[in-house]
Amino acid sequence: MKSQISTDLNPDISRPKVGIVGGLGRMGRWFAKFFQGAGLPVLISDLQTELRPEDLARQCQIIIMSLPMEVFPKEVAKLGPMIPENSFMTDICSLKQSQVSCMLEYARCEVVGTHPLFGPAEDSLKGKRVALCPGRGKRWFTWWEELLRKHGAVTSVVSPEEHDRTMAWTQALNHFILLCLGKAMDDHGIDPKQIMALATPSFEQQMEIVARLYHQDPELYATIQMSNPYTQSVLETFSQHGENLRKIVKERDRAAFIKLFEEVQNLGHAVLLLKNFM
Amino acid sequence: MKSQISTDLNPDISRPKVGIVGGLGRMGRWFAKFFQGAGLPVLISDLQTELRPEDLARQCQIIIMSLPMEVFPKEVAKLGPMIPENSFMTDICSLKQSQVSCMLEYARCEVVGTHPLFGPAEDSLKGKRVALCPGRGKRWFTWWEELLRKHGAVTSVVSPEEHDRTMAWTQALNHFILLCLGKAMDDHGIDPKQIMALATPSFEQQMEIVARLYHQDPELYATIQMSNPYTQSVLETFSQHGENLRKIVKERDRAAFIKLFEEVQNLGHAVLLLKNFM
Repeated sequence: MKSQISTDLNPDISRPKVGIVGGLGRMGRWFAKFFQGAGLPVLISDLQTELRPEDLARQCQIIIMSLPMEVFPKEVAKLGPMIPENSFMTDICSLKQSQVSCMLEYARCEVVGTHPLFGPAEDSLKGKRVALCPGRGKRWFTWWEELLRKHGAVTSVVSPEEHDRTMAWTQALNHFILLCLGKAMDDHGIDPKQIMALATPSFEQQMEIVARLYHQDPELYATIQMSNPYTQSVLETFSQHGENLRKIVKERDRAAFIKLFEEVQNLGHAVLLLKNFM
Repeated sequence: MKSQISTDLNPDISRPKVGIVGGLGRMGRWFAKFFQGAGLPVLISDLQTELRPEDLARQCQIIIMSLPMEVFPKEVAKLGPMIPENSFMTDICSLKQSQVSCMLEYARCEVVGTHPLFGPAEDSLKGKRVALCPGRGKRWFTWWEELLRKHGAVTSVVSPEEHDRTMAWTQALNHFILLCLGKAMDDHGIDPKQIMALATPSFEQQMEIVARLYHQDPELYATIQMSNPYTQSVLETFSQHGENLRKIVKERDRAAFIKLFEEVQNLGHAVLLLKNFM
């Protein structure tokens, strides 16, 4: 019913054709499969395909830019002007501020910034979070959000700035912590088998998160870490708190430690309450 | 059958009586329930009980010291000499070096250092890790390890020094990271609801670990952080790696970032392989 409503809004696009630029990449293939599963025809272009991005711009109503962030601006600058005004362009980059600006600058069509908050190893959208940053136009935005939700995604609408500010914590700082922990263990020659034999449930979970990095793309993680304008200050904040806590520990200032611990417990409690409602 | 074997080794203790010093604390109560479930008679002493530790020393063959680490040495010094030579004394402290030394110094009986690597919220021993540090004697050590294993525990035998060195990573550093992350978020006024709406699976898991702190005892965590002689150097190592990585990110040194990332991926891979065998 919901998708009925949205196609009513766009009577000319009851079964729009989807073009995925970078469709042979891992996320590109993921979305190709997703759209095919949703019953939409899909064309893809990539370095090795005969179809060029400009073919997709001509033949498709929906253009998904699934490209490494390094080449993204150049490709959008080239392709954007070729996309008809009543078409839809979105990206799936991990950052959104400069990406949405770039699409708005070079394309006249409707634009949404999309950040699927999961990797290509996931089977389906069910329960997966997707951040949506409105760019230009409402019709395709509504269509896109409804399609994602219909397939189980939990969408959050945020401004590109708010998105990138949040990612400095949820991605950049989180990866930073995991990398520092893993690198420190590695440099100390710590034997994973030995340490896991003495792992608390909390540390075991921490190592599971470190282990997840094994499936990830180092190039993407480098860009996430280096291209977000808010990362530096978050990393500095974390390091500053590290210095403060090291001082508290060194001076055996139990009162200060317990005060800090209880503050973090309050945050933890808020997270637990949220989980119960999720 | 196994427990048959061990009681054969100790014909005088086919059904030994267990005395828990500090038996009204959360872990004390957990172990009281455990031993009762194992069919052993249990006596407890605590600040509010009529039974005194010295009553337990006289009446029980097994003495479990379930006390805060701050008062542990004083209590062991008092009680140790009263425990008969053919009895068994163990503790459940989160650190083992000074604790095992202390028990060996003041008691003549058999001694084992025990660290249950889980909290009092767990239903049973099944699949839970327990570190055992042999102190003095083999008969009770065998009895104790077999009892724990029979009830599903995964025991690891380590020296007290190796135990504490490992805990500087699995407990002290892990807690340090969680506290710095939580405190930084709190100070930045980050709304848990908003950030969780944009959480990746990795960050969500990280916040679940932070949330676990809600159930923990700040006093115990202060002691774990401040009393382990190996903690300072591990925290310094982690901070040093933080400085290095911040520099790599600031200078946008992709090659260095990717090299580091791949090193941590190798560690992650080793952890994944272990998990598959666990």
